[in-house]
Amino acid sequence: MGSTIGSRFRLTVFGESHGRGVGCVVDGCPPGFPLDLERLQSDMDRRRPGQSVYTTLRKEEDKVEVLSGLYNGRTNGGPLTLFVKNEDIQSSTYSEVGFKPRPSHLDYTAHLRYRGYFDYRGGGFLSGRMTAAMVLGGGVAKQLLGYVGVGVHAYMRSLGGVDLPREPSLEEVVANTYSSPVRCPIPEAAEEMMKRVSDARSSGDSVGGIVECLVVNVPAGYGEPIFDSVESLLAHALFSVPGVKGVEFGAGFHVANMKGSEANDEFYVEEGKIRTKTNNNGGIQGGITNGMPIVLRVAFKPTASIPKPQRTVNLETMREETIVVKGRHDPAIAIRGVIVVENMVAAVLADVLYTMIDQKKF
Amino acid sequence: MGSTIGSRFRLTVFGESHGRGVGCVVDGCPPGFPLDLERLQSDMDRRRPGQSVYTTLRKEEDKVEVLSGLYNGRTNGGPLTLFVKNEDIQSSTYSEVGFKPRPSHLDYTAHLRYRGYFDYRGGGFLSGRMTAAMVLGGGVAKQLLGYVGVGVHAYMRSLGGVDLPREPSLEEVVANTYSSPVRCPIPEAAEEMMKRVSDARSSGDSVGGIVECLVVNVPAGYGEPIFDSVESLLAHALFSVPGVKGVEFGAGFHVANMKGSEANDEFYVEEGKIRTKTNNNGGIQGGITNGMPIVLRVAFKPTASIPKPQRTVNLETMREETIVVKGRHDPAIAIRGVIVVENMVAAVLADVLYTMIDQKKF
Amino acid sequence: MGSTIGSRFRLTVFGESHGRGVGCVVDGCPPGFPLDLERLQSDMDRRRPGQSVYTTLRKEEDKVEVLSGLYNGRTNGGPLTLFVKNEDIQSSTYSEVGFKPRPSHLDYTAHLRYRGYFDYRGGGFLSGRMTAAMVLGGGVAKQLLGYVGVGVHAYMRSLGGVDLPREPSLEEVVANTYSSPVRCPIPEAAEEMMKRVSDARSSGDSVGGIVECLVVNVPAGYGEPIFDSVESLLAHALFSVPGVKGVEFGAGFHVANMKGSEANDEFYVEEGKIRTKTNNNGGIQGGITNGMPIVLRVAFKPTASIPKPQRTVNLETMREETIVVKGRHDPAIAIRGVIVVENMVAAVLADVLYTMIDQKKF
Amino acid sequence: MGSTIGSRFRLTVFGESHGRGVGCVVDGCPPGFPLDLERLQSDMDRRRPGQSVYTTLRKEEDKVEVLSGLYNGRTNGGPLTLFVKNEDIQSSTYSEVGFKPRPSHLDYTAHLRYRGYFDYRGGGFLSGRMTAAMVLGGGVAKQLLGYVGVGVHAYMRSLGGVDLPREPSLEEVVANTYSSPVRCPIPEAAEEMMKRVSDARSSGDSVGGIVECLVVNVPAGYGEPIFDSVESLLAHALFSVPGVKGVEFGAGFHVANMKGSEANDEFYVEEGKIRTKTNNNGGIQGGITNGMPIVLRVAFKPTASIPKPQRTVNLETMREETIVVKGRHDPAIAIRGVIVVENMVAAVLADVLYTMIDQKKF
Repeated sequence: MGSTIGSRFRLTVFGESHGRGVGCVVDGCPPGFPLDLERLQSDMDRRRPGQSVYTTLRKEEDKVEVLSGLYNGRTNGGPLTLFVKNEDIQSSTYSEVGFKPRPSHLDYTAHLRYRGYFDYRGGGFLSGRMTAAMVLGGGVAKQLLGYVGVGVHAYMRSLGGVDLPREPSLEEVVANTYSSPVRCPIPEAAEEMMKRVSDARSSGDSVGGIVECLVVNVPAGYGEPIFDSVESLLAHALFSVPGVKGVEFGAGFHVANMKGSEANDEFYVEEGKIRTKTNNNGGIQGGITNGMPIVLRVAFKPTASIPKPQRTVNLETMREETIVVKGRHDPAIAIRGVIVVENMVAAVLADVLYTMIDQKKF
Repeated sequence: MGSTIGSRFRLTVFGESHGRGVGCVVDGCPPGFPLDLERLQSDMDRRRPGQSVYTTLRKEEDKVEVLSGLYNGRTNGGPLTLFVKNEDIQSSTYSEVGFKPRPSHLDYTAHLRYRGYFDYRGGGFLSGRMTAAMVLGGGVAKQLLGYVGVGVHAYMRSLGGVDLPREPSLEEVVANTYSSPVRCPIPEAAEEMMKRVSDARSSGDSVGGIVECLVVNVPAGYGEPIFDSVESLLAHALFSVPGVKGVEFGAGFHVANMKGSEANDEFYVEEGKIRTKTNNNGGIQGGITNGMPIVLRVAFKPTASIPKPQRTVNLETMREETIVVKGRHDPAIAIRGVIVVENMVAAVLADVLYTMIDQKKF
Repeated sequence: MGSTIGSRFRLTVFGESHGRGVGCVVDGCPPGFPLDLERLQSDMDRRRPGQSVYTTLRKEEDKVEVLSGLYNGRTNGGPLTLFVKNEDIQSSTYSEVGFKPRPSHLDYTAHLRYRGYFDYRGGGFLSGRMTAAMVLGGGVAKQLLGYVGVGVHAYMRSLGGVDLPREPSLEEVVANTYSSPVRCPIPEAAEEMMKRVSDARSSGDSVGGIVECLVVNVPAGYGEPIFDSVESLLAHALFSVPGVKGVEFGAGFHVANMKGSEANDEFYVEEGKIRTKTNNNGGIQGGITNGMPIVLRVAFKPTASIPKPQRTVNLETMREETIVVKGRHDPAIAIRGVIVVENMVAAVLADVLYTMIDQKKF
Repeated sequence: MGSTIGSRFRLTVFGESHGRGVGCVVDGCPPGFPLDLERLQSDMDRRRPGQSVYTTLRKEEDKVEVLSGLYNGRTNGGPLTLFVKNEDIQSSTYSEVGFKPRPSHLDYTAHLRYRGYFDYRGGGFLSGRMTAAMVLGGGVAKQLLGYVGVGVHAYMRSLGGVDLPREPSLEEVVANTYSSPVRCPIPEAAEEMMKRVSDARSSGDSVGGIVECLVVNVPAGYGEPIFDSVESLLAHALFSVPGVKGVEFGAGFHVANMKGSEANDEFYVEEGKIRTKTNNNGGIQGGITNGMPIVLRVAFKPTASIPKPQRTVNLETMREETIVVKGRHDPAIAIRGVIVVENMVAAVLADVLYTMIDQKKF
């Protein structure tokens, strides 16, 4: 039924855009872990809108509350429940979308699936607001992974048609990503990306983008056969993020144009460890980690809610009409998508590497 | 642990490359369905190698056997078990790969994951041979979908760098795909694709490709929220197919370069039904089907096993060595991937549309 | 990891005894259902302690809060999140049990499983307090079942050694159960049961009991084969209720002493419907409902926390010691178990009968 | 959909009574385990009918075949597929039961659930024959548990109204159970049990029984909270065995008549380890193992198929008729139930203790 993901590290999200708030239940967090709530709050702040002109002007404080699972600052082995209240809701701006569905938005399909009962205000329980719950749960996972040395780092790869001019170094990613309003690790590109977003906003439009995620220090030999390949689990989680239309690993779609002799990652030995000269497989071979960094990319579509007039169909009259979407929407959902991708990748990997996490007693 | 996928229409695969055979258990097939075994055999034949110079020269008869679940030609409501024997096995050609892992192949990661015990011959239970079990189970799903009017059609979109010159019509797809040795629906492009494959084979190399899948007549309003979005379930299944490195829906990665005003699929009315002018969402909005055709693309890497000399590391000596892969391998796994993608998409959609299938009594 | 149960109607519980509160996420509730919050509150009140001398003297208001999933009084198709705050907590009485485990209590095993980090106060996330979350989620299920005509009724079958003198009628069950402090549908027996509970309390002891559950108007032909038999799903849920040591259906353990000719439920026709003369199968044959009422019994052990001095082992010194349990505990957990059994049975049956519920549009 | 159980050690069963055979896929078997096929065959032989006058006269060779998962005598980490062919089928004796359902048999409910398409011969995929697949998969689990020192031992506790006169010692259980035709560990009682079975058979009747299972050397501290309590998982599996109507742990239903001061298992120290003086909890407290032996009992109803004339309803005419069941049926399914209970308990515990098994490298 969709609210739960994972088998050993398991995440259940709940809440909705215009209700009391959103939250998650994290099941499988080993006992005794000293959860850093400030760091979790910092993740929430990175997702929060209202931080710059490049995201929406809504203000959501998103203060992390712990409803259960912590005892004296450490996880107690039971379900960890995290919650953030909804604030600054302007429901009036949604009065129309209930019967005039916004193009490319879930208004229409939610109407079909849930019939008249869907709370279309702000996208209800299918809203981008649900990514706050993903960031919360995934943030816990990221801290657990950090404890066993695994680092998960997402950043903007391409925004509004501006690509990174080169591979960013890990140092650049760590230093620059979240200080950049567009989450771009290379300052020169960031400028140009910001310009494109500004231009789109000015013209009542929006832009798409590609988020890349780099996972370093991944131990080799983890993953399950066939249907639970590491790629399957990651893609499953990433396609649950609103607005995602593509996921690729390593060389991704580009590999289709390569020859085997180009695409194959040859092995060599470095400091006594087997590594590959290239990483076209993105750290995963046969569904199992090979010890190289996991590299993946996620394509976000432009924000569907744009002020520009668009054609739609009035569901009550079945006549075509023009809609002008009101409300305060991000001109590029990919920007907030960066921390969402990062934390959902962490949530999946905490499940994949569960044995390793579980064995490291606190 | 990876052998099972699906919740209501559920597929469990078993077997291995160099064992007795491979098969699957299909759980959730409604009682009374007149399964067409000839059509299932025809699906298997479409996956079978040894059909042309563009695939391997191995011969596998792949005769479909029913171990349980059929009674007087109809499903009896219980687990449907299908099996194909392995034949024409040449294990001797794999003597080396146990300790000299082929670049980009699962040899290395399976060795790490399953320690010395993995049956590396032919890729064991992680082999491309397992796709025979996927084709079997998915073939049942495809027949069930056909019964409720849904058509699933995969074809080659790009092979060896040769793209389709235009969108193929549904008629072309149906008429040409499986009569083409490279599963290409547009004959002119097929010629060029075949040439690239031949050239690659001649030079001891291999090529990658992109398989596209078009699902027509999909009812609107199906899919679950958040983690069980239709895209999540499809991508999960598709990334379990060996060699897949990317999955995208609708405009896919291209959407990242579009503006909202370009990417949004505006609604209009046609013959009393709501449709969209474009289909950049690939038939899925907010994780739920919107009634437009589902369109997705899957990137296959070039066959990893190539005759060209490659560098690897001897796992026993930890010294770098050169490996020349023997055995009979497809120069392009994407070719056989076409029917695999088609049937795995069907397996997932039979799960998504289960209520609809279940309500249509036989 | 244990917080989630069900496949289509799915319940996730969270919270803990001495934290902010407890709650649940109900996934799969169809859109448009007019959830009766007063009736849900009434279920909570039936579980609440402090109602009589036969239960504990703790006071918990247990006011039901809706965190998400309701819109204009109807379910909106998304995750329904319900919550009750914890109140009147006296943590000081638990200072000892962290290292002097109470006999037959989870103190000891939780200490082993969660090492030092378990919040032993009040039983933490394994506490009887968690049954409040079960009652909440199951209460939703019971309302859904009522909507399709299925009635779920639990009552005390045996308490402190006092058995019901005869089969209660459905009318008696409905009229008397929850007005009786010991949930006994037959007033004469209720008196005697109350006396036994009083006596046990007076002597610093506790008593066990058997809760029976009767489900009427169950449609025939529901249930899945083998591992998802209706009995399997019900027993799974019931053994998750703290203190349960046995579950039986129909004639239950008594059937082991019967001959086939006695135990077999012969068929006959009544008003055009097939029924059985006896109901030794308890409404389930071959794991599938047969249209007769489902009858099951659940054995609850006596409350483990008793004031009488008991021997235990000090976990710090590994020396045997005597413990005198403080705090306010029910002298018979079976009493509060009645509504818990009733609602957990409902939660499982809402899953089993999901298709039926889903087809009945609101 | 019912054919799969377990999360890490996972069992999928397939096949049917009158098809090609029955089998199972074992997922999660760690690589390198030297599976003892002779011991597995011996388990199958213990389930096999035709061994004595106390079971049926059908002959089934039940030769274990390995379809995948073994390489050089050791598990290879992939799905382990085991199969036994069906032999000696007499379908003709079932010609009537398709429309004259046997009382207390699945004939009627399977007819409702699977409409006309169920293969009623021998019970189809719901048949007692499916327990052969359970014994196979559970037999693998039992060997894995043995490797970490855990012993699983089932035996007859009560048959045809004859109870064991006292607690059997572990030595008696090991020495006598499977050499007794009625699986009774105490020879004196065995004689009387056999007499009851013979008498029942002579009079065209059948008897019920109670199987007890003792698991020794269970490590303390294993099990998951709430819905995945060890009791929940065990009961779930045991209620999937055909004919089971009750499951209890430790003092079971008897505990309902006890006082807390009697029922509570007080702790003491023996050889530096914490143990309990009594074992009324049956080795499980709060859903978690406490280090004492797990003790459980399973009630089997008498075989439903008896030669004595019984009343039923003709499904075609809806008239009441008398049925005389033909075919060769066990007079007491509990007898064959012993090895089934033993191995299903093992299957569940291999899942519960998975971490322990997985860490013990081969």
